[in-house]
Formats: sequence, C-alpha cells, structure tokens
Amino acid sequence: MNTILSRDSQVRIMETTVANAEKYFGLFCTLMAAYTRKTAKLRDKSDLLVKQILDYANTENPELRNTMKRFAEELAKVQDYRQAEVERLEMKVVEPLKRYGVQLKQMRTEIKRFNSVRNNEIKQLEKLERLRQKSPSDRHTLSQAESNVHKASVDASRTTQQLEETIDEFQKQKLTDIQKIFLDFVTVEMVFHAKALEVYSSAFQILTDYDLERDMEDFRAKLHSASGNYDARPVSSTNPSSSLPWSSSSQSIHSTPQRQEESEYDAEEHRLQDFSDPEEAPTRRPRHSRTNQPRS
Amino acid sequence: MNTILSRDSQVRIMETTVANAEKYFGLFCTLMAAYTRKTAKLRDKSDLLVKQILDYANTENPELRNTMKRFAEELAKVQDYRQAEVERLEMKVVEPLKRYGVQLKQMRTEIKRFNSVRNNEIKQLEKLERLRQKSPSDRHTLSQAESNVHKASVDASRTTQQLEETIDEFQKQKLTDIQKIFLDFVTVEMVFHAKALEVYSSAFQILTDYDLERDMEDFRAKLHSASGNYDARPVSSTNPSSSLPWSSSSQSIHSTPQRQEESEYDAEEHRLQDFSDPEEAPTRRPRHSRTNQPRS
Repeated sequence: MNTILSRDSQVRIMETTVANAEKYFGLFCTLMAAYTRKTAKLRDKSDLLVKQILDYANTENPELRNTMKRFAEELAKVQDYRQAEVERLEMKVVEPLKRYGVQLKQMRTEIKRFNSVRNNEIKQLEKLERLRQKSPSDRHTLSQAESNVHKASVDASRTTQQLEETIDEFQKQKLTDIQKIFLDFVTVEMVFHAKALEVYSSAFQILTDYDLERDMEDFRAKLHSASGNYDARPVSSTNPSSSLPWSSSSQSIHSTPQRQEESEYDAEEHRLQDFSDPEEAPTRRPRHSRTNQPRS
Repeated sequence: MNTILSRDSQVRIMETTVANAEKYFGLFCTLMAAYTRKTAKLRDKSDLLVKQILDYANTENPELRNTMKRFAEELAKVQDYRQAEVERLEMKVVEPLKRYGVQLKQMRTEIKRFNSVRNNEIKQLEKLERLRQKSPSDRHTLSQAESNVHKASVDASRTTQQLEETIDEFQKQKLTDIQKIFLDFVTVEMVFHAKALEVYSSAFQILTDYDLERDMEDFRAKLHSASGNYDARPVSSTNPSSSLPWSSSSQSIHSTPQRQEESEYDAEEHRLQDFSDPEEAPTRRPRHSRTNQPRS
C-alpha cells in the first residue's frame, strides 16, 4: 500500500499543478483581454479627440489652424501605434493564453485515466484482502486474485510513468509558455511606448513652433477690417464676415465646459456621436481594419 | 448707420470666437477627462494583473516564483507612473480646460453689455428719425434727440473699443492657453512613455534571466520525492505534500481559460473581486492616494 500512498501524493501534486495553471492562466487571459479592451477604448477616445482638434483647427486663423492640424496628425499616429499594440496583444498574449485551455483539458483527461487505473489496483487489492479473510484455504481463487492484483499493479506503474512523462512535458511547456507570453507582452508594450515617445517628441516640436504673435496680428487685422475703425493690415477680402474661416461655424452652442464636464458618461457619448461624421475620419491614411473592442 | 453695420460684423466675429471656444474647449475638456478616466481604468486592470501574478508566483517553484515576483514589481512600477500620468492630466489638462468656462462666461457678459449699449444707440437713432418725420419743425425736441443720439454714439464707441481690447486680451490668452494645455498634455504623455519604456526594459531582462532548466530540476525532484520511485535529487523535507509551495493552494477551480474569456464584463468583474483581498495589495510601496476614476 506504500506505493499507492506515494502515488497518491504524486497525483495530488499533478492535480494541483494543473488546477493552478487553469486558475491563473484563466485569470491572466481574462485580465489581458480586459487590458487590451481598455487600451482599445483609450484609442477610441483619442480618435475622437483627434477629430475635434481637426474640427477646431478649421475655426482658427492659418497659424493655429496649421499647428492644430499637424498636432492632430501626430496624435492620430500614436493611435495607429496603439491599434497595432491592441492587435499584437490580442495575437501574442490573449490568444496563446486562450489556447492553453485546450492543453489543460488534455491534462485533466490524462489524470482521470490514471486515477481509474489506480482505483482498479486498489479494488483488486481489497478483493484479495476479502478473499484471504473469507476463504484463506481456497488456493486457486487466491492465486487468481493475486494475479489480478499483480496485473493491476503493473498497469498502474506503467500509467504512473506515462503520466509522469506527460506532466513533465506539460510543466516544461507551461514554463516556456509563461516566459514567452510575458516576454511578448513586454515587447509589445515596449514597441508601443518607444513609438509613442518618438511621435510625441515631434508633436512637442510642432506646438513649440507655433507663432502666437503672428496669429494675433491676423486676428487683429480681421477684427479691424470688420469694424473699419482702425488702420488695419491689408486684407484681400472686402467682405470679412463671409471670408473668415470661422464664419460658417455653428453659433448656437451655449453649453459651458463645466456643464459638459459634469455630464454623465451616457450623455457624453451621446454628445460626441453628434460629431462622428464618417466623412471626416480623424486620419486619412489607410488603417488596419479596427475592431471596436477586441473580444474574439 | 454704416458704423453700426460694421460694429455688427465685428460683434459677430467676437460672438463666433467665443462660441467656438465654448464649443471646442468644452469638447476638449470632456474628451481629456474621458481619456484620463480610461487611463485610470487601464491602471486598475494592470493592478489586478499584478496581484494575480504575485498570487501565481506563490504557487510556483523558487526560480519562477522569484522571476514572477520581480516581474510583477516592474509591472506595478509602470502603474505608479500611470497613476502619476492620471494625476498630471487631471491637474495640467482637464482642470485648466474646466477653468476656461469661467472666462468664457465673463466674455459673454461683456458682449451682452456691449449689445445693450449698441441697441440704445439704434433706439435713439430711430427716435430721432421718427421725430424728424412727425415734427420736423420742433427744433427743441429735435435738438434734444440729436444730443441723445450723440451721447449714445459716444457710449457705443467707447464700449466698442473696450470690447475690442477685451476680446484681444481674450484671444491672446486663449491662444496661449491652448498651446500650453496641449504642450502640457504632450509632456505628461512623454514622461509616462519614457518611464514605461525604462521599466519594461528592466522587466524584459528579468524574464530573459529566468532559468527554465533549473526550475524543471526542482519540479522533477519534488515529483520524484513524492513518488519515491526514482533516484531523486536530495530534498530536505520528508513530507513533500505539505512542504511544497503550492500544496496550500485551492484545488477546486475547474473553469477553463475559454470560459473565463467568454464571460461578459460584469461576470468578469465579479470573478476578479473574489481575489481582491485588501491585505494583499499589488504593491506594498506607499502610493499617492488613488482615486478610482478621476471625475472631480
């Protein structure tokens, strides 16, 4: 019975190993998928921001308009890299973790098969014990039962060794995979952060280059050309109110930033949808087809 | 009347400038607040991941346990930087945009005041016109009305100039602010991405340094020490099932990664709450007090 007891603790180790893998790889999969979805939502908000900056640019004078458009372009680039991040996380982190479920099911089947063989060995041993007490002189039946015990024992030993090999292979694969999956996660993140840093550096330069004084000169010229009260800088148009870049913009917006800020999530989503004209996509560059939220 | 018409188009420019500022600064405020909230949610998911990696580490052999703990520490550092990012975005981007609402309200009051002065000028002009048609010979009344028109006209001119100065100041401040706010946004993002890149580089090294073979030797030794069937590496403990690091872990988890992955958001949140023991915070280092979602 000592062999059976030690097999018992061995099978407990195996079962615990598989149970832990199921628990934690499952949790990692759920959390990595959630992390990827939150990243996709951050990208979505940023896309809306890009669109509004471009819209805003069109209401301003050439100097700020140009700066805002170039800034929005850079911000859109960061979102392209974020989109690549989302796709890579999905492919290199979430999917491999998901595939793990299949391997874990196979391991469970192996352990179940081992348990049934082991239970047979115990059953044969118990049968032999009962026979020895009931009919200690029935040599023939006892010999038969001893033979059955021996056979079951050999089966159990062979299966134990097979299971040990399987669990060894499983553990090795698990350790390799966990290292690879987290390394891939870190690599995907590093690439994104490096690219984002590069693009934001360029965005910083664009904003720094903005010439406020030149912008103010334009503004004053247009204002004075409209009033006719002052010596204005020469302005080509004689009908300023229709030639001004912002004159066609809506004038009936009376909500203040405070009110918009305090609005609840749904209201905010609703507001922003009003501006989501597909004809005015934030960036014109061809993009990888984006899923709204990677859930596959 | 020509002066009044040109004042009219001037006031339209001013109103449009303020209306555009209200619209777009309001939208930027809403979107930046949403961006900050999504970033905070990404941090929250990552915190949960850190916690689960630490829990998982405790179910593994020393080699992987050590690697996972050090990896989780790095991942927690990224979240600390993300938290700093959230706080800085709130302080340097969302708040200044919010404060803009107050300035815009003041501008609206100025324009309203200007309009009432301008309307008085028109009213006096119309009164004079009516008098000229009704009683063209009433010199005294006409002279009085002419005097009122002159007074109203002087008032309007003075107010126009005041408004022009105010709008000039407002526009200058607006352009300065928009440049500063977006520069601050870019700077906050750059700092975060640079720090994240640095920490992930260190995390990459930690994962690369992991010695899989050594881990497997430990695993085999423990498995064989439990079975007693093979020449195992010397293991100090004689009661492997209780000395194994994972022996105290829960064994009743039967959910597969697939099932967890397919679960809806609510279910997922519910699952993960089961593990959120406040005694086992992801990182032990003192943190800035974190708000769950910056909404202030």
